[in-house]
Amino acid sequence: MKIGVYGLGRFGVFWAQQLSRLGSVYGYSRTLKTGLPTCISVTGFDGLFECDVLVLCVAISAMEEAVRQIAPRLRAGMLVMDTCSVKVHPVQTMIKHLPEDISIIATHPMFGPDSGRNGVQGLPLVFSPVRCGDSIAAEWKTMFTRTLGLKLIEMTPEEHDREAAVTQGITHFIGRVLKEMDLKPSTIGTLGYSKLLEIIEQTCNDPYQLFMDLQRYNPFTEDMRARLINAMHHQLDQVGIKKTW
Amino acid sequence: MKIGVYGLGRFGVFWAQQLSRLGSVYGYSRTLKTGLPTCISVTGFDGLFECDVLVLCVAISAMEEAVRQIAPRLRAGMLVMDTCSVKVHPVQTMIKHLPEDISIIATHPMFGPDSGRNGVQGLPLVFSPVRCGDSIAAEWKTMFTRTLGLKLIEMTPEEHDREAAVTQGITHFIGRVLKEMDLKPSTIGTLGYSKLLEIIEQTCNDPYQLFMDLQRYNPFTEDMRARLINAMHHQLDQVGIKKTW
Repeated sequence: MKIGVYGLGRFGVFWAQQLSRLGSVYGYSRTLKTGLPTCISVTGFDGLFECDVLVLCVAISAMEEAVRQIAPRLRAGMLVMDTCSVKVHPVQTMIKHLPEDISIIATHPMFGPDSGRNGVQGLPLVFSPVRCGDSIAAEWKTMFTRTLGLKLIEMTPEEHDREAAVTQGITHFIGRVLKEMDLKPSTIGTLGYSKLLEIIEQTCNDPYQLFMDLQRYNPFTEDMRARLINAMHHQLDQVGIKKTW
Repeated sequence: MKIGVYGLGRFGVFWAQQLSRLGSVYGYSRTLKTGLPTCISVTGFDGLFECDVLVLCVAISAMEEAVRQIAPRLRAGMLVMDTCSVKVHPVQTMIKHLPEDISIIATHPMFGPDSGRNGVQGLPLVFSPVRCGDSIAAEWKTMFTRTLGLKLIEMTPEEHDREAAVTQGITHFIGRVLKEMDLKPSTIGTLGYSKLLEIIEQTCNDPYQLFMDLQRYNPFTEDMRARLINAMHHQLDQVGIKKTW
C-alpha cells in the first residue's frame, strides 16, 4: 500500500513514521524539509496522487485550502483521511469538496511526538468512517489496532468536539496561560506544582497555531472558556479577595 | 523526647505519625478524634505542656488564637514549632505572643497525606530557625534529614512566601477552579488532561480552609492571581475570541 502524507510539520513527520509500519510512505510539504527519517520518501505534490490513501496532516485552519487543492487531482477510489484535533469542521469541508467517488475517514490521534515519545501502544485514536465501504473501515480499524496497537474510539465528529473541548481545549488553554506566566522549577515545588509544569511541556511544544485553531474551530470551546472564567471568579469571590486588576 | 502535637486534622495526624519516629507523640485536638494510629497517644490540653516540644498543626487562620492560648502555659525552655503553609504571618504571631524563654522554629513540610502516601523520603521541608540556640537547630536538622530522610531547605519566611505564592498558591488556585468545573475522566483524554485531573486530586483533598488561608495570608498571592488573570485575558485576546461572559 502507498500512503501519501500531506504536511510534514512536527506532527506530520511523527505520524508518517507510525504509518510507515502499514505501507510505503510518501511525504509532501509545501516547504523544503531536510533531516527527515528515512522511512519517509519525499515526493512532489503530483506524487501524492499515485498513492492509495492520502493522509492530511495540515493545520485545522489550512484544511479548506488543502482539500480544495487536492480535490480535482484525486483518482476515483482513493481514500482521504484527516488527522485534525477538531472534527466537525474538517468533516464538513471534506464532504463538501471531495468528489463522491472518494472515500473519507476522519481520525484524531489523541497523542503526538511528546506523549507518543516512548511508542504509541495503547494510546487512543478517534475513528469516524464518514463516507466509505464497510470493508475499508474494517481494514483500517484492524491496521490501527492490531498493527499499531492503538486504542480505537469510534465517535461522531460532534461527540468528539463536545468532549475534546474539555479534554484538549482546557488543557491547552491552561498550558498556554501558565507558559505566559513563565513558571520555573522550584526547590520548594510540591508534587502538584510539578504536574502543572508538565502540562506546559505537554501542550506548548505544539505549534501556537494548533492552540488557536482548537479554540477557534471547536464550537464547544466557547462554553468551556466561559465555565473556566466563571469558576475562577467564583473562587475569588468565595475567598473574599479584592480584585485589583 | 516527648513531642506534643496540637491539632489532629488530616495533616496533623499524618505529621504526628512521621514525628513518632523521633520520640513519643502526644496528640491533642479540640474535637474528639477516634480511629487514630496507635503511635499517637491522645492527651488533653494540659498534657501538651508536659512535652519537650510542641508542634502546631492548626489552620493558618487559627494560629493566632492557638498561640495566645498556649503562651501562658508553656514551660521555660520548651520549643514551639509551626507547620503552616505560609510563613511570614505565623512567625510574626509566634514572636509577638510567645515568651522570650521559649525557642521557636518555623517549618513547612512541602507535602502531605497524598504526596507522602508512599513515604516522605527525599521530600522537601522548609526550615527556618526563628529564635533558638544553634545546638537545638542543629539537632532538629539532623533528625529531619537523617532520621526522616527529608530534604531540608533553609530560607527566610519572606523568601518562602514569595516562592510559595507561585508553587503552592497557583497550584491550589487552579486545582480549585478545575474542581468547580467538575471535570471527568474521558476515553479521549490526552496525557496532559490526565495531569490536569491529578492536580485536582493533589489539591482538593486538603481542607478548603487551607486553600482560603493560602490565598489570604500569603501577601504575595495577590500578584500571582493578577498575573494569572492577565495571562488568561491576554491569551483570549491573542486568539481573537469574543468574550461572552
